[in-house]
Amino acid sequence: MKLLYPNTLKLDPAAISGFPTLTLHSYDAKAPTLPSDLLDAEILVTWANAPANLAFAAKNLPQLRWIQSLAAGPNDVLAAGFDTARVKVTTGSGLHDRTVAEHTLGLLLNAARRFYEMRDYQMRGQWPGHLGGPQPDREPGTFRTLRDARVLVWGFGNIAKCLVPHLVGLGARVKGVARSAGVRAGVEVYAEDRLAELLPETDALVMILPGDASTRHALNKERLALLPKHAWVVNVGRGSSVDEDALFEALEAGEIGGAALDVFAQEPLPEGNKLYKAKNLVLSPHAAGGRPQGAEELIVENLRKFLAGQDLRNVI
Amino acid sequence: MKLLYPNTLKLDPAAISGFPTLTLHSYDAKAPTLPSDLLDAEILVTWANAPANLAFAAKNLPQLRWIQSLAAGPNDVLAAGFDTARVKVTTGSGLHDRTVAEHTLGLLLNAARRFYEMRDYQMRGQWPGHLGGPQPDREPGTFRTLRDARVLVWGFGNIAKCLVPHLVGLGARVKGVARSAGVRAGVEVYAEDRLAELLPETDALVMILPGDASTRHALNKERLALLPKHAWVVNVGRGSSVDEDALFEALEAGEIGGAALDVFAQEPLPEGNKLYKAKNLVLSPHAAGGRPQGAEELIVENLRKFLAGQDLRNVI
Repeated sequence: MKLLYPNTLKLDPAAISGFPTLTLHSYDAKAPTLPSDLLDAEILVTWANAPANLAFAAKNLPQLRWIQSLAAGPNDVLAAGFDTARVKVTTGSGLHDRTVAEHTLGLLLNAARRFYEMRDYQMRGQWPGHLGGPQPDREPGTFRTLRDARVLVWGFGNIAKCLVPHLVGLGARVKGVARSAGVRAGVEVYAEDRLAELLPETDALVMILPGDASTRHALNKERLALLPKHAWVVNVGRGSSVDEDALFEALEAGEIGGAALDVFAQEPLPEGNKLYKAKNLVLSPHAAGGRPQGAEELIVENLRKFLAGQDLRNVI
Repeated sequence: MKLLYPNTLKLDPAAISGFPTLTLHSYDAKAPTLPSDLLDAEILVTWANAPANLAFAAKNLPQLRWIQSLAAGPNDVLAAGFDTARVKVTTGSGLHDRTVAEHTLGLLLNAARRFYEMRDYQMRGQWPGHLGGPQPDREPGTFRTLRDARVLVWGFGNIAKCLVPHLVGLGARVKGVARSAGVRAGVEVYAEDRLAELLPETDALVMILPGDASTRHALNKERLALLPKHAWVVNVGRGSSVDEDALFEALEAGEIGGAALDVFAQEPLPEGNKLYKAKNLVLSPHAAGGRPQGAEELIVENLRKFLAGQDLRNVI
């Protein structure tokens, strides 16, 4: 049985070897085809494949039974035309939690500590003195530190669970919002019907929503209007969950404090898009994740289950 | 007995009241004089006072016995001409640990996640695509995440102890350097004579050294040369501890990865100083601290000791 693994990240083959019936074969995930001696593969691991590569695989791997994507949301695999009646697809959910959480924490600190504004002054050769020296403390109506800041995390999956301890450790008062209420990662998570009460009491809104029809423009004009004037929005989920026109207007009108966006409705954000120069907008180029962590462990766990005929982890 | 507290930060008088012989009086720390009815004060709390205000106090408070500064290093008080044979001075050491630690963490993430570079692209209306999407992981010779990064903290006082758990929580491998060796905050701290071995194994060097003669140019040309080419320097201690000319040359020559500086030999950094435009230099305007946290608790503790004739905390 052949497993194909991509050359688009460093995988350690030794860490996935040892299954007696299995052979491991590296392949070029950016190539438009696959070598003819690999076309009898039953298992395909994917990461950052060229669309043509996936399209070729969809047509030319007749014995394929399982695709292990290392992406959290393998839209590329789903769009490639695989026969999902015959081919199981499992995602890399969980492999990106820590790296996305780190980036999110960085964006929150960038916002609170005004690193982006310091940079603008620096590039003009000016000392941003108003951001240094003795500063007001415990001022209501500001977001200048995570200490005592009211952070609302909207979308409470594994990334949120990974992020929250760091926020709590820095002194933030964290609440969550998700489809269902409960206590998770030690914080109170509310159902989405409570948003109207929660948004007005938020200094920083962290959005980690998946990109599907149900989350489209979840943050719209009406909800933006519920945030305090100093509140920041940090989006590391999917660009479609924010109404970018409404966000732009809220930023320009000073109705919110700022926004740090790692995701956009269209990526790359087209040149000339008004968001580039929007007031207090911090742009990050879908950089939060992009580095699967622990891929070998997930592949091994699912390999064992696959060979034993058990249910796989992260099945779509 | 009169205690004077400054109007330069929000103190809660109720939290320091209740001592029977003591009366509390707010004063304008930016004014060149003090009101005549306060000149019999025995205790003076200072924060961000105007130099003239302190100079006036040094000459016109004949009954003054104790100054509680809220600064970590009250150079302003020491320079004002108080008779230190008669007037005890205590510092605000400890009041800035959490806020400086947060800023330092932010600067480290700014460096690792390249927020400053993203900002430059954004301001030019360009998508910094090379910093997003699928990224190399576990690449040796890079500093792109705190996970598994080798962070060396030079100067291991209370700020370091406050910072280290956050770094460890994000997966960094932290070591310390200080005058004396030992295990502190759960990490191994080495004596300074080990720097020649430690610097070559460092991805990020965090400097939290005090500003005195013994630390002047502690990071000099020779020590900079020991750092790997990708290593970052983050200085939140005092500007005098870095040889800025040597740092500039190392940055321009690509001998180190970058530097995030919150402190400078001269502050504000003079307009036209070459550091503004140095390659991979992130400027922060002495913004790490500047917000004493828990001032009331320190004042109360020291008041109780002062009235009881006990040794004060944070005596210079």
